[in-house]
Amino acid sequence: MLNLHDRLQGWQKRIEVVLDDVLPPSSTHPAKLHAALRYTVLNGGKRMRPLLVYAAGEALGIAADRLDIPAAAIELIHVYSLVHDDLPAMDDDDLRRGKATCHKAFDEPTAILVGDGLQALAFQLLAAHPRMLASPAQRLRMIEQLGQAAGSRGMVGGQAIDLAAVGQELTEMELENMHIHKTGALIRASVLLAAYSVEAMDAQRLQQLDHFAKCIGLAFQVQDDILDVESDTQTLGKTRGADAAAGKPTYPSIIGMAASRAKLQDLYDEAMNALLSFGESADMLRHCAEFTVKRIR
Amino acid sequence: MLNLHDRLQGWQKRIEVVLDDVLPPSSTHPAKLHAALRYTVLNGGKRMRPLLVYAAGEALGIAADRLDIPAAAIELIHVYSLVHDDLPAMDDDDLRRGKATCHKAFDEPTAILVGDGLQALAFQLLAAHPRMLASPAQRLRMIEQLGQAAGSRGMVGGQAIDLAAVGQELTEMELENMHIHKTGALIRASVLLAAYSVEAMDAQRLQQLDHFAKCIGLAFQVQDDILDVESDTQTLGKTRGADAAAGKPTYPSIIGMAASRAKLQDLYDEAMNALLSFGESADMLRHCAEFTVKRIR
Repeated sequence: MLNLHDRLQGWQKRIEVVLDDVLPPSSTHPAKLHAALRYTVLNGGKRMRPLLVYAAGEALGIAADRLDIPAAAIELIHVYSLVHDDLPAMDDDDLRRGKATCHKAFDEPTAILVGDGLQALAFQLLAAHPRMLASPAQRLRMIEQLGQAAGSRGMVGGQAIDLAAVGQELTEMELENMHIHKTGALIRASVLLAAYSVEAMDAQRLQQLDHFAKCIGLAFQVQDDILDVESDTQTLGKTRGADAAAGKPTYPSIIGMAASRAKLQDLYDEAMNALLSFGESADMLRHCAEFTVKRIR
Repeated sequence: MLNLHDRLQGWQKRIEVVLDDVLPPSSTHPAKLHAALRYTVLNGGKRMRPLLVYAAGEALGIAADRLDIPAAAIELIHVYSLVHDDLPAMDDDDLRRGKATCHKAFDEPTAILVGDGLQALAFQLLAAHPRMLASPAQRLRMIEQLGQAAGSRGMVGGQAIDLAAVGQELTEMELENMHIHKTGALIRASVLLAAYSVEAMDAQRLQQLDHFAKCIGLAFQVQDDILDVESDTQTLGKTRGADAAAGKPTYPSIIGMAASRAKLQDLYDEAMNALLSFGESADMLRHCAEFTVKRIR
């Protein structure tokens, strides 16, 4: 029998195949844009959001093949946000996952358009991909949720808060508010889109999964801030200390390293508690949580 | 009885109210981003795409209130494309409709995020706005169509072709291919989204409306190129001769001014012919076509 880690790797391979499949071939006109789309998406990310979709689906008894397209759609939104985030006018990053960022490998206009095109594709997939097995009502609910999570009151709003925060002294609560928007909204959407595949979803279980996702999303960010201080550039695949150097507020800079570690542990415990009623079906979600707080990049 | 022009103005007023209504209040957190969203959308554009939605709806016997949200969604996609198009890395325009472009009035990161947020909002509205009266299946078809028209094989692809064409000698056919993607796809979507509101759409009528939209989309672009040469900056609300100065291929630069005028007339005639079987119900579409080729800005 496969252990949890092998199964997680199986899902990682699975989503790579799905992403490869839903992206237009690089020969599609205009070819440079489509080559850039593929370069950017198929570059070995952790695929944390798709893994959460599959794991939440397993906790709810939904087979992975019903979740391939929602998982891909969320990852496309995530990747587009990274591409725009890396632009010179934003974080101006040259490296992402150890490779040249889209605007470095291609050019800035192409990177803007790659992000724009990926967002459109995400919604198009949920609306009409042949392998999208959910009912019309379920699909609409997913599109609404993804639009909200990605939009100006979700991820994009979080980016705006982040930009305004550079060089500012934030309170811990303000930092948390930023992360809840910037990364939390899309991580919650991962769990919610899986839940929306269920015909008649129990409200309490939905709330528990949502709370799990909230805690994990924040824990991911705390760990990101810790790694920015403690890891090295090669392991991270991006420049170590970049956030601190850019004057970005981080958990270690606001509450110190010891309190950051304690917060990470608290969030992990709270996430685990939210899954208490799920039994073994949520083992993969638990493993995702562990993976999140123990990862080294 | 109102004449055609008064009715067009009535629809222009109508869509302004709808757009104002679907945008989050500027006090929404984060406030700067939402102020920028409203500044950018509510700035007195021609609203050509919403007008086409309403006019195509009238030709098909669909009341305007069933088309408010599709019309708004298409306009949000159009506005986001202008915001990203105006960025320093793209066309680097300071003026749009006589006012400072988003990145000039705010800043570049905000303009990137405004575009991103508008795109998400467009799909969210089609999926779930309370005033969206179409059936789930119809909504999904609209989302699919809008995603395709906006994406890397539609508008975004056209932008990429446009960027690659700067300083190049294009043939007339290559120029046409660019416009079919860059502006044609969204103009066709305007007519198609109206048609998707019809319960059982006649395939031939759909094809006629689609052909009308193709001709009008191209005619709009030919007229744009003519105006870029012949109008003045104040009337245009953007810098006259900007396309020529930027080394962008235009109809006058490729086929000359006389042939451009003849082409405009041919496209207009073809568009009108496509509406022959519609009778009086298509008078507003005809008026849109006239408005397109006779406009001075």
